[in-house]
Amino acid sequence: MKRYEDPAWTASMAVKLDYNFAMADFVGEHGLRPEELGALDSRISAVHQELEKSRREGRLAFYELPYQTDIVREIRQVAKPFLEWCWEFIVLGIGGSALGAKALHQALCHPQHNRLTMGRRQHKAGLWVLDNIDPDYMYGLLDGLELRRAVVNVISKSGSTAETLAQFMFLFRILKARVGEEKARQRFVITTDPEKGTLRRLAEKEGFLTMSVPPAVGGRFSVLTTVGLLPAAMTGIDIEELLAGARFMDQRLKQAGLQNNLAYTLAALYYLFATAKARPILVLMPYASSLAFFADWFCQLWAESLGKKVDLDGNPVNAGSTPVRALGVTDQHSQLQLYMEGPHDKLITFFKVEKFNHHLPLNPQFPGYENMDYLGESSLNELINTEYEATAFNLKEAKRPNITLRIPEINAFTMGQLIYLFEVVTVAAGGLFRVNPLDQPGVEGGKNTTYGLMNRPGYEKYRREFDAAPPKLGKYLIT
Amino acid sequence: MKRYEDPAWTASMAVKLDYNFAMADFVGEHGLRPEELGALDSRISAVHQELEKSRREGRLAFYELPYQTDIVREIRQVAKPFLEWCWEFIVLGIGGSALGAKALHQALCHPQHNRLTMGRRQHKAGLWVLDNIDPDYMYGLLDGLELRRAVVNVISKSGSTAETLAQFMFLFRILKARVGEEKARQRFVITTDPEKGTLRRLAEKEGFLTMSVPPAVGGRFSVLTTVGLLPAAMTGIDIEELLAGARFMDQRLKQAGLQNNLAYTLAALYYLFATAKARPILVLMPYASSLAFFADWFCQLWAESLGKKVDLDGNPVNAGSTPVRALGVTDQHSQLQLYMEGPHDKLITFFKVEKFNHHLPLNPQFPGYENMDYLGESSLNELINTEYEATAFNLKEAKRPNITLRIPEINAFTMGQLIYLFEVVTVAAGGLFRVNPLDQPGVEGGKNTTYGLMNRPGYEKYRREFDAAPPKLGKYLIT
Repeated sequence: MKRYEDPAWTASMAVKLDYNFAMADFVGEHGLRPEELGALDSRISAVHQELEKSRREGRLAFYELPYQTDIVREIRQVAKPFLEWCWEFIVLGIGGSALGAKALHQALCHPQHNRLTMGRRQHKAGLWVLDNIDPDYMYGLLDGLELRRAVVNVISKSGSTAETLAQFMFLFRILKARVGEEKARQRFVITTDPEKGTLRRLAEKEGFLTMSVPPAVGGRFSVLTTVGLLPAAMTGIDIEELLAGARFMDQRLKQAGLQNNLAYTLAALYYLFATAKARPILVLMPYASSLAFFADWFCQLWAESLGKKVDLDGNPVNAGSTPVRALGVTDQHSQLQLYMEGPHDKLITFFKVEKFNHHLPLNPQFPGYENMDYLGESSLNELINTEYEATAFNLKEAKRPNITLRIPEINAFTMGQLIYLFEVVTVAAGGLFRVNPLDQPGVEGGKNTTYGLMNRPGYEKYRREFDAAPPKLGKYLIT
Repeated sequence: MKRYEDPAWTASMAVKLDYNFAMADFVGEHGLRPEELGALDSRISAVHQELEKSRREGRLAFYELPYQTDIVREIRQVAKPFLEWCWEFIVLGIGGSALGAKALHQALCHPQHNRLTMGRRQHKAGLWVLDNIDPDYMYGLLDGLELRRAVVNVISKSGSTAETLAQFMFLFRILKARVGEEKARQRFVITTDPEKGTLRRLAEKEGFLTMSVPPAVGGRFSVLTTVGLLPAAMTGIDIEELLAGARFMDQRLKQAGLQNNLAYTLAALYYLFATAKARPILVLMPYASSLAFFADWFCQLWAESLGKKVDLDGNPVNAGSTPVRALGVTDQHSQLQLYMEGPHDKLITFFKVEKFNHHLPLNPQFPGYENMDYLGESSLNELINTEYEATAFNLKEAKRPNITLRIPEINAFTMGQLIYLFEVVTVAAGGLFRVNPLDQPGVEGGKNTTYGLMNRPGYEKYRREFDAAPPKLGKYLIT
């Protein structure tokens, strides 16, 4: 029996939500009164009905991903032959094609995974997610890799992402020079739409190995598809347990209202603090280094899904709130001063890990120093969790609302829960903000201008618009 | 002649400020009118007088650091014997004791510096800044290192930072077990106050090698002291050029008013957008992967210096604005949708690099695909800089104010300029917000509670306060 098939174990791994310190009982007028939250119950129930309908009709396909366990076999089939010789698995992707893989790698692999010897890694590849096109970064990262032992995963759902295609062209040329064209071709896996787009056409014509992204799953909701799961499998992550964690969370989110529903309660809190409580900043602050990229993953999901100019009726709203990633305890020495004393414009969400994988005791070393003696019988585990308690408590005392997600352990099962939870939080918040959480119209302008300036045929008009704009003025320039 | 002694070269390396797109001429009512900015001129001149006075009286000692070139010799003396055998330079520090070293390492070393073979590194140490106490992170990072070849730099200006002392105790025990107590002792350098504090007393009693932090330089302003310069020197960074860059910027900031003064103009813009224009979020978005940690460094400087409950007269103000680090082009696929269409609550500062160190051309690979053909004659360099232009332009078209710092190249000289510039920006903004930019009273509460909960003698009252607080309520908990 796999441990995730044991109900006692899964129950012990349930992620919990504690929102005491966001309520007026604890932070006075800066918090919510129970009736303010309760007043949202019927709206969230209506949102629930809409979401369930969209789910049934396949418009929110991410909901069903944890149940598509066929994909596990398919991914293992692709990964297995590579794992016999591959040392470096390179992802070319950006945004939704990058952040999920980075989050899982950081959360579930050894902190020095990419630097361990192959002997210690034991048929797990290093993972390099190249999510920028900065030439120095591209050059430098590749310079340090064993490219003869590399597999490159080109990920673009649309098949037309300029940055990813440019990286693909660059890396294909490099690998051709290194191992010859035929072998180079066998080192690429292209993950894209099953039918449409440049990458799909190219892959079929040129004979590249491909994997498909379900068309109804948006890029930023795609971590539990081939997009996130192939990199995860290549680095030795248990993707079955990950999906089991997501299913476990889905089962916990069946209730229509706020009562006992983590996702709807979080969505309601995030929505009310951004609107009724006029707090435009949503801080995510894990007390675990391994969750920093998970917070980045959510920052994309939240920002791109909810930052919208118009609502569902086309009325101008400029909706959304701004996600900010902080890290405990590190940012107690960077951002906490601002959170304690600065403007009342934030809601903070802590992620607290109940039990770390390692226990690091502190033995007395240099007795007789009052700043050190009290630490001597303790551990880094006790210190980090005490600092979390002290921070949450002092923020509450300063009337700064904060929430905590309690995570029993960081493992594939709890990461699956967190991913699924925050995806549902985001679409539910979309329902409360009344915006479309699945599009991103605001970034089209920049793409078109880029195409125009790069002389792509058909985009001449955007270059003309750029060229016709009033010139910058010397008086607003300091040289 | 060093290149930074050549006036033609230094002039070509001057960082430039372009704030056209923050002005009403370009973004209408969401921008500043020239007279709004001009109205701040006499206030900024008064701030200038105060800052000059504090500088002369030694209360803002960071101003003089670039001129204290004796420190270069001292640091080289400490570094030289270590560099003969040291592979891993480990910094134990947090906040101001960590962020500067991380920023310089990322900006000025090879992106795979820590992973290159010793042969390729040539008497440069790898740098590991352990700025968290997460047990899994500590264990995992150390697990991957060659500890017999490690030097540990314990950095705490006060000498009493709990996290750093705990790490010190842990690592001293590990190294003792590995190389014996006497040798272990020789592997540590303690950077702290020249006279006061636990670490100073301990180091003198136990015979550790020490370096001093000038007492009048606050932790977050200390990157150009031993705190940032020893790690930089160990990784092969030209610290003389870094200081020369800072001096160069100092000379450019002599004028009292806004006219031609980069620091005062930036401070005025940041202040006015946070207050008069009601934009509480300050986005820093370098179009260069190597500047991400520099942005983090500034986020600490800004947040901790200006996020203050009371002004200089003790009146409640809850001052400050919230810094957010984004990364171009990466976050075009994450945060840009929100920046384009979400709430009008941000001012964005881009960092544009005019010339990268590497040029990565894109040759045509698979002709006949319209999404790729236009890229075939281009380069990653052209693509990243075009995307910056397109993003700034489209934000401006959407009436979203933005500023650009133009950096001719990323090198020690320009990094010195940027560091110095943003330190002056921060104290000048302190003058405009009328808060003390040098203290951090808001984090004391958390420290005291931590001490109390950890049973440190003398802090019992804080545990009692914690224990006496009303208990959390089950109704605000979802398990």
